Amino acid sequence: MTRLLIGVDLGGTNIRAAVATGEATHGPSVHRATPAAEGPDAVLAAVVDCVREAAGKGRCDGLAIGIPGPLDPVTGVVYEAPNLPGWHEVHARDVLAERLGCPVVVHNDASLAGFAEWMAGAGRGTRHFVFITASTGIGGALVLDGKLFDGAGRAGEIGHMPVGHDAPACAQGHPGCLEGSASGTAIAHAARAALKSGAASSLAGIDPAALDAHAVQQAADAGDELARRVFADAARALGRAIGGLVNELAPECVAIGGGLINAGELLFAPMREAIPELAFVEPLKRCRIVAAELGTDAGLVGAIAWAVRCFAG
Amino acid sequence: MTRLLIGVDLGGTNIRAAVATGEATHGPSVHRATPAAEGPDAVLAAVVDCVREAAGKGRCDGLAIGIPGPLDPVTGVVYEAPNLPGWHEVHARDVLAERLGCPVVVHNDASLAGFAEWMAGAGRGTRHFVFITASTGIGGALVLDGKLFDGAGRAGEIGHMPVGHDAPACAQGHPGCLEGSASGTAIAHAARAALKSGAASSLAGIDPAALDAHAVQQAADAGDELARRVFADAARALGRAIGGLVNELAPECVAIGGGLINAGELLFAPMREAIPELAFVEPLKRCRIVAAELGTDAGLVGAIAWAVRCFAG
Repeated sequence: MTRLLIGVDLGGTNIRAAVATGEATHGPSVHRATPAAEGPDAVLAAVVDCVREAAGKGRCDGLAIGIPGPLDPVTGVVYEAPNLPGWHEVHARDVLAERLGCPVVVHNDASLAGFAEWMAGAGRGTRHFVFITASTGIGGALVLDGKLFDGAGRAGEIGHMPVGHDAPACAQGHPGCLEGSASGTAIAHAARAALKSGAASSLAGIDPAALDAHAVQQAADAGDELARRVFADAARALGRAIGGLVNELAPECVAIGGGLINAGELLFAPMREAIPELAFVEPLKRCRIVAAELGTDAGLVGAIAWAVRCFAG
Repeated sequence: MTRLLIGVDLGGTNIRAAVATGEATHGPSVHRATPAAEGPDAVLAAVVDCVREAAGKGRCDGLAIGIPGPLDPVTGVVYEAPNLPGWHEVHARDVLAERLGCPVVVHNDASLAGFAEWMAGAGRGTRHFVFITASTGIGGALVLDGKLFDGAGRAGEIGHMPVGHDAPACAQGHPGCLEGSASGTAIAHAARAALKSGAASSLAGIDPAALDAHAVQQAADAGDELARRVFADAARALGRAIGGLVNELAPECVAIGGGLINAGELLFAPMREAIPELAFVEPLKRCRIVAAELGTDAGLVGAIAWAVRCFAG
């Protein structure tokens, strides 16, 4: 790299920054705790700090930052960020560009994670790639015709496509969307609801407030029937959504990332089984359905790759 | 046009052919009844006939044909065509190219209708456009970044994305897909099922075999409550699917075509009401949701426009 390009992954808990050393590779990363409770100004100041530390004695020539919320990648305005209190219509790009004195691009964290998986992970070598990240919520990204696709704003909100008329709502209040059935939050919610209605399960001994998707996964791994059923229902919704995306987009690869994939076959087996319920044979034959490869690095790698894409050369 | 380019719309009942006179305009069209019952050879021979008549004394320099079934636009192989008996793995492009002695491209009829709406109808002037055609079945097409998008095969099968876990299956056996809830077939099926379970309706006097979506629409227009409810349920499924597509693709326009749009507000009012159940505010603000404009001409105009796109200049 002849120019000093920096990528930042801004999360609800941590900020990570690093300098690009190649198309999708970076030097050692610099960390900060995200001062989320102190509001947008404090968070952006911490980002600036982090970028300066990453740049060391150099001067940043271009910054790409992934932000966890709906935003406009063209104007750089963040509409809101569910895990960052007080973020409403924050002009993140302009604020950072002014404080750092360099060009800045902002994008959604799931979009950049998907871009990373396409550049350097499960989707490398493809032209048409769908990324789904399933953890607390469900996000996604589309790489179409070899480009991160954003439509007339920011595309890739796969978590908020319909799966069931009468299925639960997500945290944003969308009844029957994928996130309402297949996110970590949905899994915990379904387990709590089943316990409340009197279903027998080893989960009955857990404080309901501590009953998260990870607890459901552990119980399922230990053979708990209720936990297995809850996980399989979520996985089936995910599989049906993937089947629909295969019909709609005819991608070469769909990769699933996010914390839920740590559940392994507990998630993947019923998910794979559900895909052909909807997917046509021909497009499904041409599409690999795989786990994402970059884990929690995807956000930072994506920011690096996006900085290089936007500012190198 | 300096070259003689021809477009053909092959349907289950009729074949139409015309000569391109501009980017998406054509001369008088030539018609034939589709000899569907006689199998693929007879149908392709009728297409050749039709093309020769359209060409008149000239010689066709390039042909684009829309075919009603899943196919591979790159190889020109039609996997099957539900309304054309005996069509399985038909090498339509190669057969036509050999008989006509000119280059041929084949595409799905809904893809070309969507391309027509983008070039010359409801989607003109946009860069990101979604077309949905709702009649007996539900098809669609995507124009993304100013190009008909096909992914790694043929994209745009919007009718086979999920809408309900426990909703009816379509004719292809996909449980809970959009087509199973919102197609003309689904509307007729839902009305028959409601009548069978004893619901009161003016439709009770109709021979069940003659009870189609048009009969349901007429009863609804005349104030029949059951018919209105059946139509509204279908429209709601369509609206939810559109909401999901707005989140996923952030298009500038979604246009709905096909015979069902003749129902007007009976379809559009509940459809529009359902879209925000799932669609995020920002992408929805940027997206027009409208009726298609080209009606039954869309297929032929699309074939013309596709011939020009593939072979002109």
